[in-house]
Amino acid sequence: MSSDALKIIPLGGLGEIGRNMMVLEYGNDIIVIDAGVSFVGPEFPGIDFAIPDISYLIENKAKIRAILITHGHEDHIGALPYVLSELDVPVYSSRLTHGLIAVKLREFGILKESRLNVVEPHTPFTTGNFRVEFFRVCHSIPDAMGIAITTSLGTIVHTGDFKIDHTPVDGKSTDFTSLAQIIAEGALLLLSDSTYAEMEGYTESEQVVGDALERIIGNARGRVMVATFASLISRVQQVINAAVKHGRKVSLIGRSMTNNINMALKMGYLTAPNGTIIGIKEALSLPQGEIVIVATGSQGEPTSALVRIANGEHKDINVVPGDTVILSSSPIPGNETVVAETIDNLFRQGAEVVYSRIALVHVHGHASKEELKMMLNLINPQFFVPIHGEYRHLVAHASIAESMGVSDLNTFVLEDGDVLEIGPYDGSIVDRVRSGKVLVAGRRRLLKPDDKLVKEQRELGKTGVVVVSVMLDAKSGDVLRPVNIIGSGILDVAQGKILENASKVATKSLEKNRNKGLELTDLKSKVTASVSDYFYSETKRRPTILTLIEHI
Amino acid sequence: MSSDALKIIPLGGLGEIGRNMMVLEYGNDIIVIDAGVSFVGPEFPGIDFAIPDISYLIENKAKIRAILITHGHEDHIGALPYVLSELDVPVYSSRLTHGLIAVKLREFGILKESRLNVVEPHTPFTTGNFRVEFFRVCHSIPDAMGIAITTSLGTIVHTGDFKIDHTPVDGKSTDFTSLAQIIAEGALLLLSDSTYAEMEGYTESEQVVGDALERIIGNARGRVMVATFASLISRVQQVINAAVKHGRKVSLIGRSMTNNINMALKMGYLTAPNGTIIGIKEALSLPQGEIVIVATGSQGEPTSALVRIANGEHKDINVVPGDTVILSSSPIPGNETVVAETIDNLFRQGAEVVYSRIALVHVHGHASKEELKMMLNLINPQFFVPIHGEYRHLVAHASIAESMGVSDLNTFVLEDGDVLEIGPYDGSIVDRVRSGKVLVAGRRRLLKPDDKLVKEQRELGKTGVVVVSVMLDAKSGDVLRPVNIIGSGILDVAQGKILENASKVATKSLEKNRNKGLELTDLKSKVTASVSDYFYSETKRRPTILTLIEHI
Repeated sequence: MSSDALKIIPLGGLGEIGRNMMVLEYGNDIIVIDAGVSFVGPEFPGIDFAIPDISYLIENKAKIRAILITHGHEDHIGALPYVLSELDVPVYSSRLTHGLIAVKLREFGILKESRLNVVEPHTPFTTGNFRVEFFRVCHSIPDAMGIAITTSLGTIVHTGDFKIDHTPVDGKSTDFTSLAQIIAEGALLLLSDSTYAEMEGYTESEQVVGDALERIIGNARGRVMVATFASLISRVQQVINAAVKHGRKVSLIGRSMTNNINMALKMGYLTAPNGTIIGIKEALSLPQGEIVIVATGSQGEPTSALVRIANGEHKDINVVPGDTVILSSSPIPGNETVVAETIDNLFRQGAEVVYSRIALVHVHGHASKEELKMMLNLINPQFFVPIHGEYRHLVAHASIAESMGVSDLNTFVLEDGDVLEIGPYDGSIVDRVRSGKVLVAGRRRLLKPDDKLVKEQRELGKTGVVVVSVMLDAKSGDVLRPVNIIGSGILDVAQGKILENASKVATKSLEKNRNKGLELTDLKSKVTASVSDYFYSETKRRPTILTLIEHI
Repeated sequence: MSSDALKIIPLGGLGEIGRNMMVLEYGNDIIVIDAGVSFVGPEFPGIDFAIPDISYLIENKAKIRAILITHGHEDHIGALPYVLSELDVPVYSSRLTHGLIAVKLREFGILKESRLNVVEPHTPFTTGNFRVEFFRVCHSIPDAMGIAITTSLGTIVHTGDFKIDHTPVDGKSTDFTSLAQIIAEGALLLLSDSTYAEMEGYTESEQVVGDALERIIGNARGRVMVATFASLISRVQQVINAAVKHGRKVSLIGRSMTNNINMALKMGYLTAPNGTIIGIKEALSLPQGEIVIVATGSQGEPTSALVRIANGEHKDINVVPGDTVILSSSPIPGNETVVAETIDNLFRQGAEVVYSRIALVHVHGHASKEELKMMLNLINPQFFVPIHGEYRHLVAHASIAESMGVSDLNTFVLEDGDVLEIGPYDGSIVDRVRSGKVLVAGRRRLLKPDDKLVKEQRELGKTGVVVVSVMLDAKSGDVLRPVNIIGSGILDVAQGKILENASKVATKSLEKNRNKGLELTDLKSKVTASVSDYFYSETKRRPTILTLIEHI
């Protein structure tokens, strides 16, 4: 690897390449863009979420100049507490993003020692041999930024998550003018959001959602509940606007919703006339036609307010006829089933339920094909790297770039850990560094997906466990009593004699092997194998077998 | 309950009400419509699928006159082997459906004793006090039927799964003429497919898929692989047609695909010029531009041919540049993530991948809103029960019926197990019978979802297991050696002294309780509780704890 070349390394995108973390390296300097978490499915029971494996950054600690954050969503900031406990590096972000990061670091008790910096858009600063300039983009959270990074090789544009919305809720559109000025001398490289590269046309403006919310809230006779993400601050603004227009008060439920919204109100990212936002007790004392309740739970999270309401288990709120529930969100991949169940249960409770499949109550925050073309057209980069998407999204985005005249020799579909080296004239993937996911179980317990413990746990859930307890005479090696067998989670135990027979199988194996002068561990393996084979022959599954041998 | 009224009981729809089984009861006679399986998610590890709980049918065995099957998909026929082993009842179905049922019953070794009957559409027969007439509908499998059932109270129309396709692959449209004749004197009740009641407009014809497949296969330079359901026989016909047109041979891989297609060819439901369908070895010896491979795996099933190909693990087939892979299907809810991974991996292997999100290579087999209106309009029923959908789909369908003038007093959104009683003038839900799912683990192992074993297994996967092995002196009750603790699947064991400390906690609990004259089971509970509390205080999780106490 040439140390003069620019290196681009997506790290721990965890399925979505580069989304949670991107590394740029030039000479002796490294900057990191974003530090987010990703969610893991039910295939990892007991795991809360995953963060990127930052081994590469730890090895190159001395080179890291800054962590730049594009916006305040969990998949871009959620890993910061873990990353900052390993790396003492300044963090740069916009103002609202800074507020969200501060809330998080305070929870972890590391706010004080962290070096957080607020950056205004269009206000360049220098770190190492990078000149960094944030520019405003539209996304489903206010104060989202793309980043232009200039080196002596040229300018790199990282779009962050973006869409082009000419009528956003906060009135702040993607700032193409600033961007055009920044790259007036041409762009070396574009790294651009690929999440919706499969979607034809344009992503609809947030305005259509505002219109729909206003219509639905205006027509509702009874209470209205709106479920959305706690981070979708613009959406909450739209709900507030609609509520105010129709003479309703707004009440927030759910801890993360309340924290985020109060912070956004305090910082001026949300506005509401005095007295609009009230506590839930007060709200429940008002006539039903005068309130809107905003809650989390739009992803069917089992402990969320909405799901408890849907199951009739919420302490304060029961669905009553005349209630309208709006799910202003769409299911994150993997959550489709639980969201559908939540909708079904709300209907069962008697609510009128409005959701994205039947009404325009949600638009997503990412650019569709025509917007991606617009970005490619404006930046007109020499090199192109699609980021922020699963592999097929990157492939789709690469083919959009090709249709816009970017040479396919200069377009690189990367995997996490790939090291792309770009020189003045060409680029190539020259290396692969350690990357991937680190699983977080409980706040600070970090595990690798191939860790023995993680595998054990997954296996247990599939097959159950059998405990084989053996007692041998310490002198003679005689089997002192029938081998004791206990099973848990063995679906076949109901079938009767399986445990009893397994005890016989184990005893037989002991009798056969006990006088062969085997080490204890070897004897244990023999017994374990015999029991495992017996279970397999009976049930076509191999439960986890724990064998205890005692000599007394 | 009046014994003269007509009873409608959806049984074991397992989320989708009535899809897997519907019961009609009139006087002393019962007929059952369909007997299918439903799939269970990763929340039930080790479970293959679910079948309806037929306790109600077993209790009323003597009344059951017939099982009528609408079409040959698994969610309508898959439970037959289990149901027929409990109930000796004749089964009536169309010819192709009969072929698929026979394959299944033969596998279970119960074909000979089963009483299967082939019914031609528009050929009524009588069973008990029901007059039964099948009528042809379009669905994503040939020979799909709706059923008109006439009693002295009036005629009940059950649509089965249907859509209205004026250009279906087999040329056989939904037979409205026959249907209009059957209900010439009016219809008492319509039971109609609600799967796509949320979708505006019309479901597109299979023809658009045929056109897309023909274009993609025509343009491909290298090999083409098409993945679809083994039961989507019409889709395979379209692939064969396109292959023949472009001078390609077709090879089938996957056992279920090969069995179904060979059966359909033999029965004349699929046609292919002689020599078109060849073995995979022969296919792989031909030039790449001359073959189309049809495989299962469109749902990302881990052991399917397509997934093994995508992972580079198939024994015969590697992806090579120039390959085109078409996923002619859309993910079943819950499979979205695995299907997406399969697509990503095929791209990684270098294939061109075409899937329903980016091209019209799949249409679904169910009617959208305008088609549902057409059915309601034609049948113009006195009573309406939406079926075959999750609760929200039924609600959506009910509101379509209301918009078509069906009184909401005469429309019933049922849950599984609800007993709807319909008299000449009105209907009401009068009772609720036992219903729900029975889980199938391995071919013949039946469990209820709330079975202790099922709960144990799910719990194990979430929390892991701890074995506590205690040895006490039989006489004195003294603790003979340090309590032995083994853990498996405990994510926190990596954190060091947890097992060691748990042993101390258990020993302390023993010392404290051993001289209180407790029964062995009570002593065991005390020790177990102390260890459980210790783990909870350390890890905020309660693993499954298995305690063994030996007196020696």
